[in-house]
Amino acid sequence: MSDGHAEQPHPSVGLDDVVHHRARLGILTVLGQVRKATFSYLKSQLRLTDGNLGRHLEVLAAEELVTLIKGYEGRRPRTWVEITDAGDAALAAEIATLKQLVSRFEQHGALPRQDR
Amino acid sequence: MSDGHAEQPHPSVGLDDVVHHRARLGILTVLGQVRKATFSYLKSQLRLTDGNLGRHLEVLAAEELVTLIKGYEGRRPRTWVEITDAGDAALAAEIATLKQLVSRFEQHGALPRQDR
Repeated sequence: MSDGHAEQPHPSVGLDDVVHHRARLGILTVLGQVRKATFSYLKSQLRLTDGNLGRHLEVLAAEELVTLIKGYEGRRPRTWVEITDAGDAALAAEIATLKQLVSRFEQHGALPRQDR
Repeated sequence: MSDGHAEQPHPSVGLDDVVHHRARLGILTVLGQVRKATFSYLKSQLRLTDGNLGRHLEVLAAEELVTLIKGYEGRRPRTWVEITDAGDAALAAEIATLKQLVSRFEQHGALPRQDR
């Protein structure tokens, strides 16, 4: 058990809600890999509804982490989503913080129980 | 750019919003390490307001991931928070999924840009 004073802030303090949210982290990690994808590809990869995916894409676009490109493929309207440089940077920062969290967890996991 | 069919679901699909939320992930990772802490210790570690911390603790307690213990230290009322076995299991599952996400990110990061 612990009490009292703050030392270093915990890694979770550095997480950005815009990027950390489950659905938005999913969108950014898929796009971090494929760079550009259709709305329907993201939907199927991330198992999100149209409404949900649309809403989270708007949040990311408002922060300029993705760009939405509306167009046609033949006669069918299509939306493409592309990650921006700011999106890449935000994703890299999130991943770095998650790695800190995971490594903290794994360090304490190695301690014998009475030392926690 | 990618289009079309779903293969394996993306690791983010396996994230649980209850545990993944930034503040709640912070609470659980601190408690995963120290097992039991006072409200004020969590507050200072996680840089949360009383209201915010209280609200997220209630969510975690409702899911039986933490137990809240109210008592006194001398004459001062105190709240202790303890992680449950279910909390440990949920945290371990979240960490395992985050590791998958991070390792996917690091694999694609090693590819030359034109192969993405």
